Amino acid sequence: MTNDKYPSRLLENAVEAISSLPGVGSRSALRLALHLLKQPRENVHHFTQAIDRLADEVKYCRECMMLSDDEVCSICSDMRRDHRLICVVESVRDVMSIEATGQYNGVYHVLGGIISPIGGVGPSDLTIRQLVERLQKLSGEEVEVILALNGDVEGETTAFYLYRQVAPLGVKVSTLARGLGFGDDLEYADSLTLGRSIVNRQLFKP
Amino acid sequence: MTNDKYPSRLLENAVEAISSLPGVGSRSALRLALHLLKQPRENVHHFTQAIDRLADEVKYCRECMMLSDDEVCSICSDMRRDHRLICVVESVRDVMSIEATGQYNGVYHVLGGIISPIGGVGPSDLTIRQLVERLQKLSGEEVEVILALNGDVEGETTAFYLYRQVAPLGVKVSTLARGLGFGDDLEYADSLTLGRSIVNRQLFKP
Repeated sequence: MTNDKYPSRLLENAVEAISSLPGVGSRSALRLALHLLKQPRENVHHFTQAIDRLADEVKYCRECMMLSDDEVCSICSDMRRDHRLICVVESVRDVMSIEATGQYNGVYHVLGGIISPIGGVGPSDLTIRQLVERLQKLSGEEVEVILALNGDVEGETTAFYLYRQVAPLGVKVSTLARGLGFGDDLEYADSLTLGRSIVNRQLFKP
Repeated sequence: MTNDKYPSRLLENAVEAISSLPGVGSRSALRLALHLLKQPRENVHHFTQAIDRLADEVKYCRECMMLSDDEVCSICSDMRRDHRLICVVESVRDVMSIEATGQYNGVYHVLGGIISPIGGVGPSDLTIRQLVERLQKLSGEEVEVILALNGDVEGETTAFYLYRQVAPLGVKVSTLARGLGFGDDLEYADSLTLGRSIVNRQLFKP
């Protein structure tokens, strides 16, 4: 024990595994491991089984590449939604955020990441090929692709790359409106956002 | 999907399981679940197996009740340590903290919790009976019990209860020194700590 930090190899392995999660340091991991140890054993197994089943059984929608329990996700199989309006997002979390607004009635395309030379993620690691094929199948129809990516360098790079891939297919390409948030004070806005808000000003609709 | 928050039941179950951990909200749980999904499946199984094995196979030292891979932990089986100096702590984390100081050469007794009427933890939920039995076996020897518990109400209550249990056995009972931390400024010390530091002043040893 004076040489080893942990009194038990089993504990050490569990702490090591838990601290491999992003944002979880070894102190938190130890706290979580000891918490799990205090639970009834069947609760721990319920915990690990839920994670194993997710990893083993999850599918991806063959249309939009989103996480799904079925071959086609509930959004893509919903015929009341506009299938010619395709919102391209980085991850399933973005789908959940946009769905939570209740303001969108189109479908999605989940890239599964963002182009990041530093992170070693190139276009071929994303579902861009599937997006192009999907748009090719829709050719002849009036299709709009919304590039709903983050406003950072990687998001902008990916948006630019996607634009060059999908624009030649004759689809309309749009992006999210950027400007002051609703309820924002001008005084506290950063100057880049405020500047773009003036340049991209919109008609006043009272 | 417009009714359900999650696009997949499997994902929902995993997020629910992960957010049952203390200090992990549903947003972090979702982030962690999606992180695990991006890992190779064998990494996920390695993760869950480490946790399952901890829950299934961990033992508690029959001497000091600490987590251990063996019947008797490495500290209790170390004959170079002073087995008549027993430091009583709340949890294995405290053992690790004290071991990390390198200043202690006795053994431990892990209570497995703290007396907390609000938390529904009574003396019988802790390893107090085992401590008393252990001390009874040592009767005739000069034994010192160090009550190394937190300085909050529950820690003080537990220390008082333990004192009443072990003092009649003829053992010396001590507690951790409390006062200003090393390097602390008087100006920033809370008045309770500063007050106790004056009352419990120690001989100056230059």
